[in-house]
Amino acid sequence: MNGHLEEVYEALEDCLRACNQCYEACLNEEDPAHMRDCIRSDRECADMCEMAMKAVLTNSPNMKEILRLCGEISRSCGEECESHKHDHCQACAESCRTCSELCLAYAN
Amino acid sequence: MNGHLEEVYEALEDCLRACNQCYEACLNEEDPAHMRDCIRSDRECADMCEMAMKAVLTNSPNMKEILRLCGEISRSCGEECESHKHDHCQACAESCRTCSELCLAYAN
Amino acid sequence: MNGHLEEVYEALEDCLRACNQCYEACLNEEDPAHMRDCIRSDRECADMCEMAMKAVLTNSPNMKEILRLCGEISRSCGEECESHKHDHCQACAESCRTCSELCLAYAN
Amino acid sequence: MNGHLEEVYEALEDCLRACNQCYEACLNEEDPAHMRDCIRSDRECADMCEMAMKAVLTNSPNMKEILRLCGEISRSCGEECESHKHDHCQACAESCRTCSELCLAYAN
Repeated sequence: MNGHLEEVYEALEDCLRACNQCYEACLNEEDPAHMRDCIRSDRECADMCEMAMKAVLTNSPNMKEILRLCGEISRSCGEECESHKHDHCQACAESCRTCSELCLAYAN
Repeated sequence: MNGHLEEVYEALEDCLRACNQCYEACLNEEDPAHMRDCIRSDRECADMCEMAMKAVLTNSPNMKEILRLCGEISRSCGEECESHKHDHCQACAESCRTCSELCLAYAN
Repeated sequence: MNGHLEEVYEALEDCLRACNQCYEACLNEEDPAHMRDCIRSDRECADMCEMAMKAVLTNSPNMKEILRLCGEISRSCGEECESHKHDHCQACAESCRTCSELCLAYAN
Repeated sequence: MNGHLEEVYEALEDCLRACNQCYEACLNEEDPAHMRDCIRSDRECADMCEMAMKAVLTNSPNMKEILRLCGEISRSCGEECESHKHDHCQACAESCRTCSELCLAYAN
């Protein structure tokens, strides 16, 4: 992998981890009913990162389009997480922002 | 699920199956070197269908965008498959076309 | 696919759908805190069914071992779902039981 | 995550990457017909690592059983890769071995 794509891949790894950790922590919050949107965003974003990681490593025919969607989904997940005060949400928001910027920069 | 989304889901199930079957059959062709692009398209499209099926069933926040990308990826996979004479490629092309049309109709 | 494996595949499709539907419905229950274990089981079982479907279609080297684990995971998901009175849990329990039986019969 | 599980997770990340890289490189070899078994093992092992990573991060009810199967699958993938002289196969064999040992140590 060239340097730029390597950076994208590492951001995807980091975002996948942050989203699944935030997902599990949200589910364990005292009142998970308030975290429904965050739980849905975290699962969607984690699965999208997996898909994008595979695309990057296997020379996927539509890699750029996959990275573009991953960039949009991680941006929307980051916005959702940012609106919650929990540490795991704030940490996830940060990982999502970095991931989104790198994916969109590569795709465009 | 409403009727339209149910139809989309069934087309995704069918496309996932056709792509993985075509993938395995391409790998077993006498000269898999000629089938590289088809193998890559099949794997990408199968994984995208899985992602879209999950999005449809779990009220995923970016479901429409996921279905749009799935519609584009299944269209490109269908075009690749259509260019090969093997029965498994022709069958896969047909499943991809239906899937693509239904995903794009829902997303737009 | 031979007849037995075709039956297994259809049970996996059905179980994947039921688990993701039960997952989403549990998350929407008035008090999702009571449904945490069911939400976790549904996600695990849905992802395991996806993995098993891919293994069945692509002649995966450890297909039998994958089906065995899928049979165990769908059994445990079915037991969790069975303990809740919601219609979606009862429907999911039924799909899980069928899936578990067919996977284990094939694997053993 | 505790220290042991953190080590398992990092080995899974490494193995996922190595398997997808080896997969793509095998497909690009001059004669991919000789690499069929390695291509199948790589895809199976990469997908199993994804599943195990998710299980580790989300407190999956059957995490230990998932890690046990992942340990067996990465062992069999490592053995397949070890039998080929290509650098990507040898590198993948090494990542698979480490992953297998850590998964099995945790699961048992």
